[in-house]
Amino acid sequence: MTGSMPSLKLVYFDARSKGEVIRLCMHVGSIPFEDYRVVRSTEWPSLKPQTPFGQLPLLTIDNSTTIAQSNAILRYVGTLAGLYPSTDLLNAALVDQIVLQITDIRNLHNATKKDPDPVRVVATRETLATTCYPAMFGYLDKTIAQHSAGIWAVGHTLTIADLMIYANVSFIKDGQWAGIPADLVDAYPKVCAIYEAVRSHPKIVEWEAAHPK
Amino acid sequence: MTGSMPSLKLVYFDARSKGEVIRLCMHVGSIPFEDYRVVRSTEWPSLKPQTPFGQLPLLTIDNSTTIAQSNAILRYVGTLAGLYPSTDLLNAALVDQIVLQITDIRNLHNATKKDPDPVRVVATRETLATTCYPAMFGYLDKTIAQHSAGIWAVGHTLTIADLMIYANVSFIKDGQWAGIPADLVDAYPKVCAIYEAVRSHPKIVEWEAAHPK
Repeated sequence: MTGSMPSLKLVYFDARSKGEVIRLCMHVGSIPFEDYRVVRSTEWPSLKPQTPFGQLPLLTIDNSTTIAQSNAILRYVGTLAGLYPSTDLLNAALVDQIVLQITDIRNLHNATKKDPDPVRVVATRETLATTCYPAMFGYLDKTIAQHSAGIWAVGHTLTIADLMIYANVSFIKDGQWAGIPADLVDAYPKVCAIYEAVRSHPKIVEWEAAHPK
Repeated sequence: MTGSMPSLKLVYFDARSKGEVIRLCMHVGSIPFEDYRVVRSTEWPSLKPQTPFGQLPLLTIDNSTTIAQSNAILRYVGTLAGLYPSTDLLNAALVDQIVLQITDIRNLHNATKKDPDPVRVVATRETLATTCYPAMFGYLDKTIAQHSAGIWAVGHTLTIADLMIYANVSFIKDGQWAGIPADLVDAYPKVCAIYEAVRSHPKIVEWEAAHPK
């Protein structure tokens, strides 16, 4: 990037879902940012109607422009951080397709949270865990095997695709996607290798020590 | 873009959903491509397990690399076509957020198709039409008003954000999202202005005359 680094304020809940991968990206890229954590019970009701799409996360740039949609923010900060191949059009598309595949996986899980019937929630997640997710992670593993030049998902270096895999797979491995077995992804070696490589990255270790789960 | 244009083959159903906006982008950008339309009943069952994520559309580049995920493909061809501000990081993010907001709207509709209970489908769509969609289009209209420099959604020129709005709003306006009123978006002037501007664009008129609905 040319020019000076913009001032960045990330607004998100004190949670590790959509916004956490953006935080990890900025921390790995050593980009200073204000990590503003909205209190859901007290602040969010009055903030929500003021946001572009009624959702968090948001990124405010130089106190003037606010961007919504987590994957739009992730690509923006990934480019600033040198963790997105913005000048290599083909590799950028390969990174995008992995980010979007993980988004599809996460969206399927998040959709189950809206169901008010707890019995149906468990049934839906069991179906995800035995049909959709094995297929989706299987496809993901094959795609990584095809385009990785080693450990990382695309090319020779860590990108936002790897951070997206890590941030979301860690929910499953930590048993936090209730109803989805913690060992679900163990059958996918490329996915697991990326998870481990990100987990042991010095900047990630540093971040997680400062922000315990 | 530097270098020669790659050869491109788009593989999608003979349908106007996720793949159509990619076709429109390449046609508006005068990018030659093979418009391969898979027959769902005969070809798709054997093709599906060979695809990266079990889904269409796919884009094959120079007969060698295949990219999946419609928004990854859209950004790739949008950059080739000069319809994505790939060298303007902030405008790129503003385009991305609109593409992703429209994707959220489309995903809500597509999710209703999976429900086997036709009574619940209608009820879900009525809820979308009276609660979610007005809020989401309202947010979209305000966001466009904030960043548009005239008609188009971001800056001074047509981008993939405008094509994404057009391709998806046209389903509603044509009454093809069964259960969603055809006049639902009429209350959102910026969205409607973009829809009309894309609809009357000479390259879109040319494409739709050659590919009647």
